[in-house]
Amino acid sequence: MISKEEYERLAQAACQYYKRAGIVLTTAEKERIEIADFGLQDVEHTGLQLIVYVNTDRVCAKEMVLLPHQTCPEHKHPSTGALPGKEETFRCRYGRVYLYVAGEKTPNPHCRPPHGSEAYYTVWREIELNPGEQYTLFPDTLHWFQAGSSGTVISEFSTHSTDETDLFTDPRIKRTPEISEGI
Amino acid sequence: MISKEEYERLAQAACQYYKRAGIVLTTAEKERIEIADFGLQDVEHTGLQLIVYVNTDRVCAKEMVLLPHQTCPEHKHPSTGALPGKEETFRCRYGRVYLYVAGEKTPNPHCRPPHGSEAYYTVWREIELNPGEQYTLFPDTLHWFQAGSSGTVISEFSTHSTDETDLFTDPRIKRTPEISEGI
Ligand SMILES: [Zn+2]
Ligand SMILES: [Zn+2]
Repeated sequence: MISKEEYERLAQAACQYYKRAGIVLTTAEKERIEIADFGLQDVEHTGLQLIVYVNTDRVCAKEMVLLPHQTCPEHKHPSTGALPGKEETFRCRYGRVYLYVAGEKTPNPHCRPPHGSEAYYTVWREIELNPGEQYTLFPDTLHWFQAGSSGTVISEFSTHSTDETDLFTDPRIKRTPEISEGI
Repeated sequence: MISKEEYERLAQAACQYYKRAGIVLTTAEKERIEIADFGLQDVEHTGLQLIVYVNTDRVCAKEMVLLPHQTCPEHKHPSTGALPGKEETFRCRYGRVYLYVAGEKTPNPHCRPPHGSEAYYTVWREIELNPGEQYTLFPDTLHWFQAGSSGTVISEFSTHSTDETDLFTDPRIKRTPEISEGI
């Protein structure tokens, strides 16, 4: 849960990033920017801002903002039975993002996990994405990402989003209620 | 089929539109911009430029450019048996696009079909999309669209794209070979 003041501050910061990235949002969209704090009460370090453009049964597209060094914590999108998990492509639009996936550990990675959460970051193959660069993640693969020092704007093109089914490495994380009371 | 010279000219024009829209492409992407002329040998009027970001079995994302008054001709994405047809969301990023779908005819629509192709434009409910505005099309629904006088850049978020299965109202249209010899 974040306060109404914190929501306003982060949503406005996100709007500035969208503007810098040349991304136009409607007034209605600006009023429904979401903040994910992942339940850790430390949104500056573990959190992200986003606007969901569309999320039907088959297709989802959103635009995420991460402030400088802000982190989306490690998770995966599990398949269940015959139902394949979420597939997502991240495309960097502004700034720089470091994406970490399973595979051989990158020596001297650029990022450190948020303080106190180190145990819950286990994949260390680093993929650096600058504007125009992208990476596709298939279901059931652990990943996390962190903005560089200028923050970042990232488009996500994916199958249907259901945050409830995301599996986070950190058992303290709750993904569901993103926005605070009264918003 | 378009000439190599025409390809270069249109691809460069598309790059300028992407730049104006604040969209960053990698060098590799700029070199694989596609031109769809729909086989009508009149690409200035019936055609579009595009870059496909990703097209997996489940998710497709692309960014289209239409020059002033350039038209994507009327078509639909049919379902076949249990397999649902393509679903697409168009999001205007720059300029203005007029999208036409089935429904009550809009009085005094802003666009006219390309000269000589009038018979193959049958749906006339007009949806105007300005930057930040979007519209989702479900399978099996006829649609066509035309850029306004400033041209347009449109993101498309969709399920898997298979141009071969698109059904065009105009029987003269061939969608497949987009780029001319040697490119
Ligand atoms: Zn994910
Ligand atoms: Zn279509």
